[in-house]
Formats: sequence, structure tokens, C-alpha cells
Amino acid sequence: MMSNSIKPGYGDESCIAAFSTVPGNSALTLIRCSGKGSIELLSSVFSSDKLKEASGNTVVHGWITAENEKIDEVLVSVFRAPKSYTGEDGLDICCHGGTSAGKAVMDTLKSAGFRDALPGEFTFRAFMNGKIDLTKSESVMELVSAKTDTSRRHAVSRLLGSLEKEINEIKILLVQVLASAEIYLDYSEDEVSADEEESAGRLPGREVAMEVLARLQKLSVSWQLERIYQEGIKLVIAGCPNAGKSSLFNMLLKEDRSIVTDIPGTTRDWIEAFVSIEGIPIRLIDTAGLREASDSIEKIGVERSRKMLQDADIVLYLIDGALGLTNEDKEFLAMSDNSFIFIWNKADITPSPQGFINISAKTGDGLPQLYSAITSKILQQAGVEHAHGGIPGAVPGAVPYVALGSERQKKLVDAAYCALEEALTLSEKEEPLDIIAPLLREAVNSLGEITGEVSTADILEEMFSRFCVGK
Amino acid sequence: MMSNSIKPGYGDESCIAAFSTVPGNSALTLIRCSGKGSIELLSSVFSSDKLKEASGNTVVHGWITAENEKIDEVLVSVFRAPKSYTGEDGLDICCHGGTSAGKAVMDTLKSAGFRDALPGEFTFRAFMNGKIDLTKSESVMELVSAKTDTSRRHAVSRLLGSLEKEINEIKILLVQVLASAEIYLDYSEDEVSADEEESAGRLPGREVAMEVLARLQKLSVSWQLERIYQEGIKLVIAGCPNAGKSSLFNMLLKEDRSIVTDIPGTTRDWIEAFVSIEGIPIRLIDTAGLREASDSIEKIGVERSRKMLQDADIVLYLIDGALGLTNEDKEFLAMSDNSFIFIWNKADITPSPQGFINISAKTGDGLPQLYSAITSKILQQAGVEHAHGGIPGAVPGAVPYVALGSERQKKLVDAAYCALEEALTLSEKEEPLDIIAPLLREAVNSLGEITGEVSTADILEEMFSRFCVGK
Repeated sequence: MMSNSIKPGYGDESCIAAFSTVPGNSALTLIRCSGKGSIELLSSVFSSDKLKEASGNTVVHGWITAENEKIDEVLVSVFRAPKSYTGEDGLDICCHGGTSAGKAVMDTLKSAGFRDALPGEFTFRAFMNGKIDLTKSESVMELVSAKTDTSRRHAVSRLLGSLEKEINEIKILLVQVLASAEIYLDYSEDEVSADEEESAGRLPGREVAMEVLARLQKLSVSWQLERIYQEGIKLVIAGCPNAGKSSLFNMLLKEDRSIVTDIPGTTRDWIEAFVSIEGIPIRLIDTAGLREASDSIEKIGVERSRKMLQDADIVLYLIDGALGLTNEDKEFLAMSDNSFIFIWNKADITPSPQGFINISAKTGDGLPQLYSAITSKILQQAGVEHAHGGIPGAVPGAVPYVALGSERQKKLVDAAYCALEEALTLSEKEEPLDIIAPLLREAVNSLGEITGEVSTADILEEMFSRFCVGK
Repeated sequence: MMSNSIKPGYGDESCIAAFSTVPGNSALTLIRCSGKGSIELLSSVFSSDKLKEASGNTVVHGWITAENEKIDEVLVSVFRAPKSYTGEDGLDICCHGGTSAGKAVMDTLKSAGFRDALPGEFTFRAFMNGKIDLTKSESVMELVSAKTDTSRRHAVSRLLGSLEKEINEIKILLVQVLASAEIYLDYSEDEVSADEEESAGRLPGREVAMEVLARLQKLSVSWQLERIYQEGIKLVIAGCPNAGKSSLFNMLLKEDRSIVTDIPGTTRDWIEAFVSIEGIPIRLIDTAGLREASDSIEKIGVERSRKMLQDADIVLYLIDGALGLTNEDKEFLAMSDNSFIFIWNKADITPSPQGFINISAKTGDGLPQLYSAITSKILQQAGVEHAHGGIPGAVPGAVPYVALGSERQKKLVDAAYCALEEALTLSEKEEPLDIIAPLLREAVNSLGEITGEVSTADILEEMFSRFCVGK
């Protein structure tokens, strides 16, 4: 029983512990611990004194023990502050896998005085101890959730500091603008009457401000595609029975070797899988089997099918080329919106009228055109120009890739942009600098919030609590 | 592409790598590597030279790299032969979690020259390099699969060598018997005519042989209960609608705090969960909802229900005490076998006739009696006497607990027992020692196979290939 009635929070200095791997059918389980005194605390339930005396970055072999019972044989990696992930003393305990050993070790840790780590608490501590800024903190979570290799690469670029660097560069420019404005303010308040035109009126460093504005906009726009790289899109294959939906589904799976997983579900009357098209995670849904089902079930199936189409980002609507347009196809053509791509299957048998993409799900003909149509549609929906050489950020290391990595960052960039834009507008209208300067300061602060230079406990707690436990 | 066309096998000296944790929604992923030259091999895709120079049992921080691209930031624990799990040079790579980072690191390792480890290959190498015997090897897999804390504790006792010690002690005794028999054989072959009575006839060291026989039998019997600790039993709750099946199910769940997991399934019309009763893993199945279902589905439900009862180790058949025995209840009473326990529910309203266990699933009355009936039934089915002080092995550290840990061990113990028993019978019949001695040698060999002192490539491969990958 915990005698401590104070609610544990991100601010306290407890020794914390969490599973960093999924307990389950695995050979090993990793438990991460951190906190001042954590090495001594673990030593109280460890079989050998070596642990207490261990240098940082060494591995100690031994047993977790409780009341002289040997609980599990483990390898413990010891980290000494400040050379650790969190910047505090810390330990990675490598236990046996499965559900029992890890649980027994965790129970022992807790009775020794460790408490469960809160979501993201290790990374929170790393941030608080100055090991990483907030953009890197967020990239850690991004990396863990990355669905495709491209998503991973983008997260890595932010973990390496690409975004932090860009934000800091922009901020330095903005601070220059602010500083020159404030110099004028200081002068006008004090002795000098001097240039009325300068004090009221055009912002000093206006050119620099314009450059900042452009770079902020570029960042803001980058999120539109980046969000898709992170969250992926939902692509539903629809069409009449026997139009070849399952063949197309299987072909898209087969073409792409980076299938992540078949999503496990309960009762499901559709099939789904993750594929990667040009690095974009695609949740591919085959509604086949819905209409093929019999009688009473079919009715529910069709309804679900229509619901699924509404939720889809992109619908690949397949027409049976051998049959031609059915009445149902025509209905869909009429009701279709911008999310639809119409595909004429079995084009090897009967060529299509204009306006359709010709494929043969059987021979694989037309597949490159289909991929191209899908990526164009994604870019179009994201409001991004199709850049020369493919989707931005899809090719590894082509250009240093700088993009925002979270909705939080996007909001702050937009806030900075708006404040700066307003400052420039007021400056055009020759409003006094003491109205303009606070807007500039606001913009600087927003940028500071992105990296965490400016932050409050509330903001941090809100952000880190959305992380996963054990990170 | 692998240019090597030779099938990789347990015997070869490749550098191997495997995921040791489940890839999934986790903070970290652990990849284990082993093999002569593995540290140098990993260095070829690592960001710093520190790795190559690292001492054993140290942790190196850096990046896995491929063609100058940074793949993932990792912590690498370095182990130098012979101080490692396998006895070879080895590495534990702690990558970021999720599906992408670990996969990208594994791809990089493979292109660097590592190959996928076969199931149990790390432990196989540990055995081959004399780090552990076969009983400890098997206990590692047992530990990983342990379903309850008691199962874990038993596995740990074998990992600590309890069984290895017992087998070796028995073997030493048996070798004494064999040696004295062979001395007589040598003498009779050579010069001495001497004691004809001794050469043909009663085995020298007969007392010792009898002790060995007793200890082997004790071991053999231990497996009956140990198998249950490992595999668990299937307990099905059955009875008429509204007899209180779901209440009982929930109460059994509630009483036991060590619920492991609700088993995920696809379409299922029963509910199941794991509970631990006195350390025995119980797969608890509630067939409630089957009969309550309507019309056409019900028929399938009832059939499934009956099938489930046949597969059950124990059936808790619940009678609605408020209603009394229904015709259906009477049918079940008539057809019931030794797996049934009949329970009179709602005993707080109407007490039962004799021969039933009275409970109230509502108030919890009678639950201790029910637990006791369940454990008695388990022991009875396992052919084990209910020991003074509860189920053997259930209480931690009460007596040094020695039991077999696998079917393989059981077969070999039984083989040793049979050979020795036959030797003793022949000795009773005063058959010559040159017929008896080979039987003794056979028994010694069987014991040697248990620990792996005697083994063949085939036996080892068969055994380790049933392990999980990454261990």
C-alpha cells in the first residue's frame, strides 16, 4: 500500500519504472527505471552489491530478489546522471519475456519504492533536464508510431534536430526585428525626438520580417503532407460483385513488400491491411464479400459499405470492364465526390470509355498509372503541388527535409505567422511601434513554445500525457 | 539476396540476430545478436568506433547507419565471450519501439551479414558452449511461457539448477551400482573364478539401486502436477439460463487479482479469461449467452456448448436453487462423468439436497468450499495425493521443490526407471551380470540425456526448434 497520498505528477522526483516493451509472447521484457537514488533503490532488491558500485554505461548480471526469493534472472544496464536518456540515474532491466516474469519483477520494484511512470514521463524528464527540446521529444513519439519507413525517416530527421534548427534560425531573425523595433521605442520614450517617421511607421528590418513570414508559411504548409505521413489515409476498394475488388486488393498487397500488419479485429465483414505507397501509410480496405453475402446479412453489409465509403479518404471504385457500366455503377458515378477514383478493370478484355483508369487486376497492366493517380489524389487533397521528382519527402536524403511534426507545432507556427502578419499590416498603416512591438514579442514567444524554451507546467503535462508509457 | 545457398542450421557459426521483444505499440524494441565477430559486424553499420573497442558488459550509445543514412538511435549492450548468455561475443540492441524502427534496424543488420536466428538458437548456443545444461535450457522457455506466479517460481527453481542437481545426484548413485557390477564382470572375465554367487545373481549395491528407483518414481510422478502448472486446465461453467453462470464467472474473476488477460478472439459466443487458483492457471470459460441467444443461433450455440463440455477438464455445473432441479439438470446429472462438479446456486434462498456444493454467487457464500472442490478435483485427476498443507509446490519456498519440467524429461526418467527395474528383476532371478550391466548403462545414459551430457544433433535440434525465436 502506498502511504503517500499526494497524487504523483510530472513535477515530482520519485523513482519511476515502466514496461518499455509489450508484455507477451516474447523472449525478453524490458523495464526502464529512472530517478535520483534509483540505483540504490534497485540494489535493495538485487542479488549482488556490484550494482550499487557499477559505473555508468555498464551491464550487471544478477537476480531480482524479494524476501530472499529469487524472482528473475536479469541483465541491468546502469546509467549515471547526467549520461542517461533522462539525465538522471537510471536502469534498463532486461527480464525474461512472457507475462509472469516481468510482472513479478515490476511488483518487486513497486514494493521497493518505485512508482509507475506516467505516460511520456521519461521523455518529460529528459526535456526538463535539458537533454532534448520539445520538437525532439515529439519526434521520439513519432518514431515509435511511425507506420512506414518514410514516416520513420522524417521522425529521425526531427530527432536529429532539423526542425529545432529551423525554428531557432527563424527565431533569431525575428528577435533581430524585435530588437531594432525596441531600440526605437527606447529612444522615443527617453530623450531623443529624432525620426518620427521611423518611430511611427515602417518597421525596421522589414525585409527580414518578410523572409520570416515566408519560412513560417512553408513550415505551416509542410504539416498538411506530414500529417498524412504520420496518420496515413484510408483507401476503400468498392464496386459491384465480381468487378475484381479482391484481386486488386491482393495485387496492391503483393506489389508492396512493406506490409506492416493485417489488423486484427473482432467480427468483421471486410478485410483490411496496411500498405505503403511512396512512403505514405495506406489503410487499405476491401469491401469484397459484403454484397456477395446472402440475404439478411447482405442488407447490413451494404449499409456498412456505404458508411465506409463516406469515411474513406480515397475510394477506388472498380468497374467490371467485361460487363460495362451497370446501373449501380452509374449511380455511384453520379453521387461521387472528389474522393473517388474510377477504375476500369479487365481492360485487357474490353477497353474503357474515356475518363477511367484502365487496369487489369489479372495481368497487372495499368498499375503504375493507378499508383500515380492515388498519389496525385493524396497531394491534391493535402493542397500540395506535385513537386518535380515526386512527393516531397518521399525520397531519402534528396534535400534536407524540414517539416513540422505535430498539430501543436502547426498551431504555434500559425500563431507566430498571424502575429507577425498583423505587425506588418499595422506597420504598413504607419501605426506606432509600441503597438507593433508586442505582436512581434508574441510571435517570438510562440516560436519559443515550439522548442519548449517558453513553457508552462500545464502545457507540458498536456503534451507529455499523450505519449505512451515507458517512453 | 543471400548468395549462400547452404541452409542455415543450429550447428553453423553465423552471426545471428532476432527480435527478443514483440514488435508493437511499445516504447522500445530489443534485438539480440550473437556470434564470433558479431561486434565487428555491427560496427560496420554503427555510427562510432567506440563499439569495436568496447569492453564486455558495457553500453554504447550511437546510431545504426546504412549508406550514411541514420536509421535509428540505439543503446547497444556489448558482451565479450565467454561472459555472455551464449558464451560467444554478443550484443543487445535497444531500438525505438513500434514497427518501423526495429524493422529498419533488422533489415540493416541482415544486409551487414547477420542472419535470422532460428527458434531457441541463442539458448542452443549457450548449451553448446557449456553455459547451461538442458534442464536449465528448458526452464528458460518455461519461464517465458509461465502463466501464473507459481509456474514462474517452479521454472526459476529449475533455472537455478534444482532439477539438474537431483538428476546428477541420482546418476552418481546409479554409476556406483554400475561400477560395482562391472568390477565383478571384469574379474570374472579375467583371472578370478572366485564368487560365482556374486557374478551370477544378486546385484551388488542393490540397496542403492532401490533408492534410485524410488527417487526416479518420485520425479516421474511430479510431472503429472507440473504439467498442469505449465499448461493449465480448462474449466467450463455450464447450467440452465439464469442459473447464475455469469455471476459466478465474474466472482471467480474478481476474487483472483492475478487475471492475466482476456483472451482476444474473433467471433465468439462465449467468454473466457485466465485466472489462477492456488497458482494453477485456469482457463475459465463462461458459456453464458449461448442458450440465452435467440432462435436459429441458439441451436448452433447449444451444440458448441456440449462440445465445450466434452473438451473441459472440469465442468462447474450450476443449478438454479430457486427453481430446483430442471429436467435438463437431471439429464446432465445422468450423463455426467468425473469432470463434473455440481453446484447448487442461490443456496441462500433454497438449501440444496445432499451431494451438491452450496454457494450463493450473489453473496459469495460457499466460495471457499468451491475452491477446495476445484483443487481436489485437479489433484484427483493428476493422480496426486492432497499433501498436508495444500497443493505440492503451491506455497513459495516451503520445501525445496524438485519436479520435472518437460515431457521430454519425463520420458527419459521413465526409460531410466524401466531399465533399472528390469535390471533388478533379472538380478532377483539371479541372471548373470553381463545381461544386467547393459541395462544399468542404459539407465545412466537416459539420465545423461536429461541434462544433455549425452546428446545427438538430432535430439538437440528437435528440442530447441520448439523454443521461441529470440531466446
